Amino acid sequence: MPEQPELSIQGWGATGPDADAERAGAAAIAAALPKAARRYLARELGWSPRPTPPVAVTDIRLAPSRLSEAARLRLVAVLGADNVHTDRESRLRRAGGKSYLDLLRRREGDASDAPDAVVSPGTTEETSALLAACGELGVVVVPFGGGTSVVGGLAGIDPDDRPSVAVDMGRMASVRALDVPSSLVTAGPGLRGPALEEALAGSGLTFGHLPQSWEFATLGGYAATRSAGQASTGVGRFEELVAGLTLATPSGVLELGHPPASAAGPDLLSLALGSEGTLGVITELRLRVRPRPPSSSYEGWSFRSWAAGLAAIQQLARHDLLPDVVRLSDPDETRATLLMAAGTGARALRATQRARGHGQGCLLVVGWQGIATMVRARSRSAASLLRDGGGIRMGRRVGESWKKHRFQAPYLRDTLMDAGLLVETLETAATWSALPTVYDAVRRALRESLTRDGRRPLVMSHLSHGYPTGASLYVTVLADRDDALPIQQWLAAKRAATDALLTAGGTLTHHHAVGADHRPWLEREIGPLGVEILRAVKERLDPQGICNPGVLIPD
Amino acid sequence: MPEQPELSIQGWGATGPDADAERAGAAAIAAALPKAARRYLARELGWSPRPTPPVAVTDIRLAPSRLSEAARLRLVAVLGADNVHTDRESRLRRAGGKSYLDLLRRREGDASDAPDAVVSPGTTEETSALLAACGELGVVVVPFGGGTSVVGGLAGIDPDDRPSVAVDMGRMASVRALDVPSSLVTAGPGLRGPALEEALAGSGLTFGHLPQSWEFATLGGYAATRSAGQASTGVGRFEELVAGLTLATPSGVLELGHPPASAAGPDLLSLALGSEGTLGVITELRLRVRPRPPSSSYEGWSFRSWAAGLAAIQQLARHDLLPDVVRLSDPDETRATLLMAAGTGARALRATQRARGHGQGCLLVVGWQGIATMVRARSRSAASLLRDGGGIRMGRRVGESWKKHRFQAPYLRDTLMDAGLLVETLETAATWSALPTVYDAVRRALRESLTRDGRRPLVMSHLSHGYPTGASLYVTVLADRDDALPIQQWLAAKRAATDALLTAGGTLTHHHAVGADHRPWLEREIGPLGVEILRAVKERLDPQGICNPGVLIPD
Repeated sequence: MPEQPELSIQGWGATGPDADAERAGAAAIAAALPKAARRYLARELGWSPRPTPPVAVTDIRLAPSRLSEAARLRLVAVLGADNVHTDRESRLRRAGGKSYLDLLRRREGDASDAPDAVVSPGTTEETSALLAACGELGVVVVPFGGGTSVVGGLAGIDPDDRPSVAVDMGRMASVRALDVPSSLVTAGPGLRGPALEEALAGSGLTFGHLPQSWEFATLGGYAATRSAGQASTGVGRFEELVAGLTLATPSGVLELGHPPASAAGPDLLSLALGSEGTLGVITELRLRVRPRPPSSSYEGWSFRSWAAGLAAIQQLARHDLLPDVVRLSDPDETRATLLMAAGTGARALRATQRARGHGQGCLLVVGWQGIATMVRARSRSAASLLRDGGGIRMGRRVGESWKKHRFQAPYLRDTLMDAGLLVETLETAATWSALPTVYDAVRRALRESLTRDGRRPLVMSHLSHGYPTGASLYVTVLADRDDALPIQQWLAAKRAATDALLTAGGTLTHHHAVGADHRPWLEREIGPLGVEILRAVKERLDPQGICNPGVLIPD
Repeated sequence: MPEQPELSIQGWGATGPDADAERAGAAAIAAALPKAARRYLARELGWSPRPTPPVAVTDIRLAPSRLSEAARLRLVAVLGADNVHTDRESRLRRAGGKSYLDLLRRREGDASDAPDAVVSPGTTEETSALLAACGELGVVVVPFGGGTSVVGGLAGIDPDDRPSVAVDMGRMASVRALDVPSSLVTAGPGLRGPALEEALAGSGLTFGHLPQSWEFATLGGYAATRSAGQASTGVGRFEELVAGLTLATPSGVLELGHPPASAAGPDLLSLALGSEGTLGVITELRLRVRPRPPSSSYEGWSFRSWAAGLAAIQQLARHDLLPDVVRLSDPDETRATLLMAAGTGARALRATQRARGHGQGCLLVVGWQGIATMVRARSRSAASLLRDGGGIRMGRRVGESWKKHRFQAPYLRDTLMDAGLLVETLETAATWSALPTVYDAVRRALRESLTRDGRRPLVMSHLSHGYPTGASLYVTVLADRDDALPIQQWLAAKRAATDALLTAGGTLTHHHAVGADHRPWLEREIGPLGVEILRAVKERLDPQGICNPGVLIPD
């Protein structure tokens, strides 16, 4: 249906591991990881590389569609036969998202979370009519953008076990209007970042939201999950770039947001942002764009310790000098990054770090963009504070190298999974005061949960977004996979880490949303009365509870 | 009760017109307005200065309290006898806000909107207990901070005509915690700006929210109304500075907000911000603070026309070069400002404008603050764009003069009202594309409504806050007052202006909130389903509808 390339069924990229299961094994690992990195991982994790390829896509088990023929015909009457699909491939491609657990299931041949049909409305009006029909039919509706959720946002779990349809936004994927003086673009929810940037380039504009899922995630998905991108410290979180949106709900259509700002009661736009499909389907967005930055500068810095790096970034934050991109890796991630990079550049960097007493140090990547005079002024003022904080400038090569590989991690994950590894990420945020405690607590919980038979996990962290009041923490975990109970292995670790980070003062999620995976903890985050407010709003907009019932709001 | 000075009953300031009604008349006008300004106003408005003093405070009519003795004793049981007041002065001081209509009523001796009692909880727990008691007693609760609402936010209108209490926040007016590394201060809702700044100064910090009501308005009021201040273009709107707050509701206490950022579902903090007391009482706030700016620079610029000035500021906005303070006066406001300023400086300015072909031009005030290198870089880069847009730099004196008089307007209003003038303001915001249309529409509507018997109003406007996507418009109206029907005169003009600005694409209010005055238009702003959402949330949190029923949400 969509003209934009589709994500593979069992992994990341347009052609994932399912396209070439054969490559799994020693050769692929060798191609993806330098020898030193392989040795390091094998030693640290007690891991022996072994081929653990996915089952063939044709062997994935898919239950017959539970959508009755009468219901299907009713949806065809609303959307046309071309826009209602119950075939195997359409359903498989919209089964779940792209978390480690999603991939484990799909690689094992399990697609029990697939929708019973895939429908594609083309307009707000068609979406409204679809919601009305689904309400009457008792069919659950799960909006599907890029399918990149890593928190079970597309789990499609329904306590009443009704049939479900994935509402694919691929037909609503165009730029609809551009108001250059107001720096506003109006676009469909199915549009992805690359196509939006292409459409804006002719006007000398950019949107600039660049999460790791950028190649496949959609604008509607970003809004529904309160996404943050790699440059969000500078350009703002996705929600800050939404000037307005249209939300089709079972009770009618909402036009939300009034740019540039309003004091006309509570900001209802904020209810739609982060609603994860539970209140309806986002059918249009008005987004803030900006001139393409004529100048940019990425560079690396080194700090003797995690604490020293954090303190230096906190000083930048206090003085409104945060870069557009700011990413401080802890000692474990720094070491792994330099081993992964290999080559003479990385070796030279490690030598420099050791020579300056930063052998166990932390690498910081900062990126600046904008007009040249401001890039210069900001980066110089910041450099002065970073130096005061003990930072050593490592040059542009480190920054440019990070930029070059910024979207690579999910591709590498497929290779690592092919070779018997557990590989997953989680993220949170906390105030500057609470951040060190949260960091320690998460690491301890993951290590304790994932250590078995003398094999330990590798827990690597980085600060990924800075704010005046605190920062986010992004954690990558590698461990030898428990081939017998891989899902339980990660669920136990995730539970321990989540309990620990909430107790320490972190938020349940800084930019991945709640989905099905974080739902058990939402009440701890916002309190029972907070949950009651969400329920009250949902009951008014979606009285039959057809909108993505499996996520966000606890039963 | 509160140690902070109280606002006068019939006007602005700690000692308002009610303290010295005698001064109303020619002498006071002469002292407040230079001769040229008086002549200009008399000629423009067809106004003859005449003494129209308020009635003596002792002559203000106040109905007996409708609170039963049993109810009063119940409130005393909750809060203690010292914190429940039904005396005349306590009630008069919490009657309504400070709009032109409020002042007209109070000056005429009408206090029919006064609460039946004034109660002062000291903690979140006491506020909760108070709400429970009021729920049982069927008593309406109107939170009272500084009493500076200009939109009828304290109107206390109840469709069921129940007795009402003003919940004075004066006992919850302290700084409770300061987290310097996280740039967060925790404070009570009754605290005002000056006291907060004093408390922060010792730590080298500032909050920086500076609306015209700064001397009297409270933190809780700012949050409840989504306030913006004079430096909000730079430091952010008040709502952007709220990291969290505690809301005591009849259904329980909500702790909202998770700094620095979260993606854990919709941002419920945004429901409390702008809720105007309809969902409960804000009892604590966590606010972002920042280092006191070591450097600042205020300066004036002149543009040949309103359109040229707008275009230049739009360019700054596009390129992230907006100053912290930005204020572009239209030709009418520019002329009046320079006449009011009188003196050699103002005369020299006018001469310069005329010599450069800016005789009908627009004055722009820009203010920069921060570390010296960034103030210099930002103001230089901006100056280059302002010059490209045809701007002429008028020097620092203009900027410093504006800064010196930044809180003066409401004091002057009392004097003008004493002398027979209608004087009121309204405000809106629109995208850069819609702004010129909104500007024209509002001016036309006000002129048509307020022109009678050959006498015309003076409508002066300025852009007061800039955003990447648009700007706010602040309009001041002067007219010869209709002494027979002054309230109707303004209501008709306000109605015409509001209809016009909404039709043209403006928002109902950019920073004054909805209150009772804008309530009839809220549905036009957010749609019937938007109103339904607010009702659903209110019903869940305030099932008996005791929380400020007269404002925001239409009946």
